Amino acid sequence: MSRSHNATVTVTTSSGEKTIDASDSSHLLDALTAHPEFHIPAPCGGVGTCGRCRVILVDAAGAPGPDAEERAHINGSALDAGVRLACRVIPTDGMVIALPDLRTTAYTKTTLQRFSSRFDPLFSADTVSAPAPNLEDQRSEVTRAVDAGGCSRADLSPHELAGISATLRETPSDDGSFVFDAIRTTSREPVLIGVRPASAKAQRAMVAVDIGTTTVAVYLIDCRTGEMIDAASQLNAQAPFGADVVSRIESESRSRRGAAADAIRKQITRMIRDLAEKHRIFEIDLLGAAVVGNTTMIHFLLGLETRHIAAAPFIPAMTDAIVVRGSEIGIDVSSGFRVHVLPAISAYIGSDIIAGVTASRLFRSKRLTLFIDIGTNGEIVLGNKTRLLACSTAAGPAFEGATIRCGCGGIAGAVASFSRRRATTQYATIANEAPVGICGAGVVDVLRVLLDDGVVDETGRMLPVDEALETVPSDARTLYEKRITTIDAAPAFIVVPADETTSGEPIVFTQGDAREVQLAKAAIAAGVDTLLDEWGVGPEALDRVYLAGGFGSFIDIGAAARLGLIPRESERKTRSLGNAAGTGAAAYLVSDAARVDVEKVRAATQYIELSSSMKFMEAYVERMAFPV
Amino acid sequence: MSRSHNATVTVTTSSGEKTIDASDSSHLLDALTAHPEFHIPAPCGGVGTCGRCRVILVDAAGAPGPDAEERAHINGSALDAGVRLACRVIPTDGMVIALPDLRTTAYTKTTLQRFSSRFDPLFSADTVSAPAPNLEDQRSEVTRAVDAGGCSRADLSPHELAGISATLRETPSDDGSFVFDAIRTTSREPVLIGVRPASAKAQRAMVAVDIGTTTVAVYLIDCRTGEMIDAASQLNAQAPFGADVVSRIESESRSRRGAAADAIRKQITRMIRDLAEKHRIFEIDLLGAAVVGNTTMIHFLLGLETRHIAAAPFIPAMTDAIVVRGSEIGIDVSSGFRVHVLPAISAYIGSDIIAGVTASRLFRSKRLTLFIDIGTNGEIVLGNKTRLLACSTAAGPAFEGATIRCGCGGIAGAVASFSRRRATTQYATIANEAPVGICGAGVVDVLRVLLDDGVVDETGRMLPVDEALETVPSDARTLYEKRITTIDAAPAFIVVPADETTSGEPIVFTQGDAREVQLAKAAIAAGVDTLLDEWGVGPEALDRVYLAGGFGSFIDIGAAARLGLIPRESERKTRSLGNAAGTGAAAYLVSDAARVDVEKVRAATQYIELSSSMKFMEAYVERMAFPV
Repeated sequence: MSRSHNATVTVTTSSGEKTIDASDSSHLLDALTAHPEFHIPAPCGGVGTCGRCRVILVDAAGAPGPDAEERAHINGSALDAGVRLACRVIPTDGMVIALPDLRTTAYTKTTLQRFSSRFDPLFSADTVSAPAPNLEDQRSEVTRAVDAGGCSRADLSPHELAGISATLRETPSDDGSFVFDAIRTTSREPVLIGVRPASAKAQRAMVAVDIGTTTVAVYLIDCRTGEMIDAASQLNAQAPFGADVVSRIESESRSRRGAAADAIRKQITRMIRDLAEKHRIFEIDLLGAAVVGNTTMIHFLLGLETRHIAAAPFIPAMTDAIVVRGSEIGIDVSSGFRVHVLPAISAYIGSDIIAGVTASRLFRSKRLTLFIDIGTNGEIVLGNKTRLLACSTAAGPAFEGATIRCGCGGIAGAVASFSRRRATTQYATIANEAPVGICGAGVVDVLRVLLDDGVVDETGRMLPVDEALETVPSDARTLYEKRITTIDAAPAFIVVPADETTSGEPIVFTQGDAREVQLAKAAIAAGVDTLLDEWGVGPEALDRVYLAGGFGSFIDIGAAARLGLIPRESERKTRSLGNAAGTGAAAYLVSDAARVDVEKVRAATQYIELSSSMKFMEAYVERMAFPV
Repeated sequence: MSRSHNATVTVTTSSGEKTIDASDSSHLLDALTAHPEFHIPAPCGGVGTCGRCRVILVDAAGAPGPDAEERAHINGSALDAGVRLACRVIPTDGMVIALPDLRTTAYTKTTLQRFSSRFDPLFSADTVSAPAPNLEDQRSEVTRAVDAGGCSRADLSPHELAGISATLRETPSDDGSFVFDAIRTTSREPVLIGVRPASAKAQRAMVAVDIGTTTVAVYLIDCRTGEMIDAASQLNAQAPFGADVVSRIESESRSRRGAAADAIRKQITRMIRDLAEKHRIFEIDLLGAAVVGNTTMIHFLLGLETRHIAAAPFIPAMTDAIVVRGSEIGIDVSSGFRVHVLPAISAYIGSDIIAGVTASRLFRSKRLTLFIDIGTNGEIVLGNKTRLLACSTAAGPAFEGATIRCGCGGIAGAVASFSRRRATTQYATIANEAPVGICGAGVVDVLRVLLDDGVVDETGRMLPVDEALETVPSDARTLYEKRITTIDAAPAFIVVPADETTSGEPIVFTQGDAREVQLAKAAIAAGVDTLLDEWGVGPEALDRVYLAGGFGSFIDIGAAARLGLIPRESERKTRSLGNAAGTGAAAYLVSDAARVDVEKVRAATQYIELSSSMKFMEAYVERMAFPV
């Protein structure tokens, strides 16, 4: 009695079994994306080209066997074991699949830079008292609350106003006065945004959120002290919709409309709730959030049309700051929870960059500073107190591990550093777990070794084993003899042999991977050249280089310079800022000066569009080669 | 199989039959109030004391017969015909009732006073064009719309922002520019509140709403010209919850919570939609509203707690102006429809009074003016350009016809004027229809005749027929001989004999009615005395008296002076303003000067609380007698 459009699929994972409805889905990936707890990476967005959305078909329930695309991406023994690509399998009723145990916790620096400034919280709560009403003082309840809370006005919806009478009277007082907690937001002036029953001991918190294409970070900040209580970082739950913003935008036309927005909204809500629960903070005591992210992520969060961001001339729906109630955008943390979304500059210079530059304070210094955020895009800001220039390069997610064959995000088990000493290699993984893949910092390290040893030449070509053995240092010959192999008819380097990995398959770095890195680093280096040219100086004029973003947390700066990702002459002037965007969002929560700075940085920044820049095109071609 | 708490009741009216669920209702009135189309007056709010909520029990379906309360209010032949009080009948399954054909259209002056001022509409729409986006001009869609619309910023929710991309691109243009209609609100500065596909011919409208306790008036105003397109006026659909604000507030604790709020929200929505449909204006072309009303009505509209308005010290939840989306308060007229609720002063001086005073312009003149709005409460303002004093008297709804035995609102068939000439009486009804009851203006006229003829003496006592015949003018004796009767053991005057009424029962004016009017007029006159005393002048100092409100539209000013409702010396300085509150709300929509004036009047008005005023108490006792 089963019909093809009435498909119930059983999904087994290490945490149990769940039955999902795949009736309306043309392929398994589509059905799985409706359930954010199944984190399936699909860097290509489900069009069948990346080969990453692997599932094990335990019971095919009549579904056809692997197609050519699957055979190209999955080796024979894995195919025999039932491994398939979720984007190619048509769901059938009664199908049973198993999902690999994927890690979603992202390891990035979640320590915030100390932002020394006067503590002016964006959200605050204090127990206050309003005099008892009488015939000589008939001020309304709202006016009493506004006055007692030292506010200039109230910003309360009818729904929020409906409860004010009862709340003001909830805490008994001897003289009939109203004793309550006034919830305020203080940006330019204090505004009453809620009242709560008096609770002197309540720990109230606010939340800074940084939505990266690859990683989402949430910081819980104490409203009374401004101290960070805790932080969490996860891979973006939109991974099944593509690795980069353009794939995610395009996925909107294929997947259920709003699915990608749902995924990020649910993830942020869950991360905030989990952090609060861990620290025994009631949801009602979460007052609000400051959110930054690249412009596409913010569009998904707000539910705006993303389509025109993806194609020239790259027009976002909105770049302004906006304050909304969490409930308006599916962040259902608590009633009255306010979400301040920081402003952006353009489709590809988002509020994350404004927040990062604000946190770096580079715009307050005379020193000429280069700020590079290497994420899925490479955003670059050059400037000092006199001027700010910004551009964005479509570097692609190679440095996030996404387009690298064995790449992964900054998760436990990711190879994050790599070196060679004589005929042996050393590597370290995040959280010291058994290796599962290579993250961006590991990719850079591996490529440095291969460049230094001549296995990859300056044009980016990886030598086949026989050619390589003529070039590599003599003490490394026995290593490369074993470690250079052939994949897809091109050379590849075995970073971690099969017997040391969890999957039992080797972790490799391929010719294709080298090309991905080459394109990404050329784009970033050319972006830097274009901004320096616009400023009228050469790289020697740089006083400082800041690396921001998750990738910047782990990267070896020497290796980055070796690849030509940063100007070689700046190597010693370079330092990592960690998650500068997160620091900026947190600063926005705790400092009025930071809130003013965000507006200043936005107003002062001149955006340089690279897609029409001749200078960028020339530099891009020039920067394709690796430094000799 | 029927259970007592599974009660389906069939309601028949002149417009058809409807089955309602009365399972959760303790009495029929409660079940009927959930359906605003059944307009059942219940001045007492359903506690069984007014005897007005009459229905005909066609099939009692086992329900018990009339109780003592019903027998006291309904005469024998009516009881035999199945007439019952809805507030006393317990619904049973299968019950069938018939409702009398009640009129809900209220006749009040819905012509607006001309408000001569520069035309600055609160809401406007214009077809504009934004240049085509390109790589040199990557402004966001919102920024383009804001700039093209000549606005300073946008106020759009995420939901409203979601559609902006598509709307801007909907109208094709040769050069890729965006051609669209910019919807603006202009209070201090123009703000973009929406975009619509370009539609040069669309007639767009805004709405002024005046919510009185008895009557609701809606005015449809053209956005392009500021002209009134049409207006509608209905009895407030909250009538089943009581005639005055205190009964309505108390009904909240007995009826389904929010029922009274629902009733007014649905009524306003329906009135706006009906007016728009009548003039072939699409709902999407209704841009917004300015709403005034007494503070209780505004609390119901916004869903605020009303309880503390009803008892001393009379504390409203809020008196500030607020701008909300219609959808937030159940006014679902069109997406993006904005509702500006005007500010109030106190629990009993609402935005309707501020709007009325604004419309009257009395605060701009040197002349000392008395402004009286006689509705369910009597609000009084005394002032000129130097100072404004305001008070509110709990006059009760006698002048709205509500506590008068045969009273009614200003509906078709209401006796609105009455006089005697020799042994005959003349009366006129609203819309010249067969008489159904007496409205406020008629009550005043009837009482003037009875006072002039000595049938009611200065203490308010109505003489029994034998005593009266000794006092009345000789040419009136044959009239009074027939027309004075006895009701509830007290004299009563037959205003319209049974053979001239639609119901076949006489329309009477009773001793009790005379007492109601006496109390009401004493309260208002004492309020006037108190304000004059506070000002330090006597009534001779008044330069002008303005009568506002629906009642003021029809009242005979001479009769009002005869009763002592207005100072006798001011009779010739008195004029009716019609619905001044509605004029003020409409002025708010079309004039920036009016919007500034509303704030000015609010700030300048000093509120005098009468419940603690010794002067008022003294004056109230003194003003109880009718002038000789």
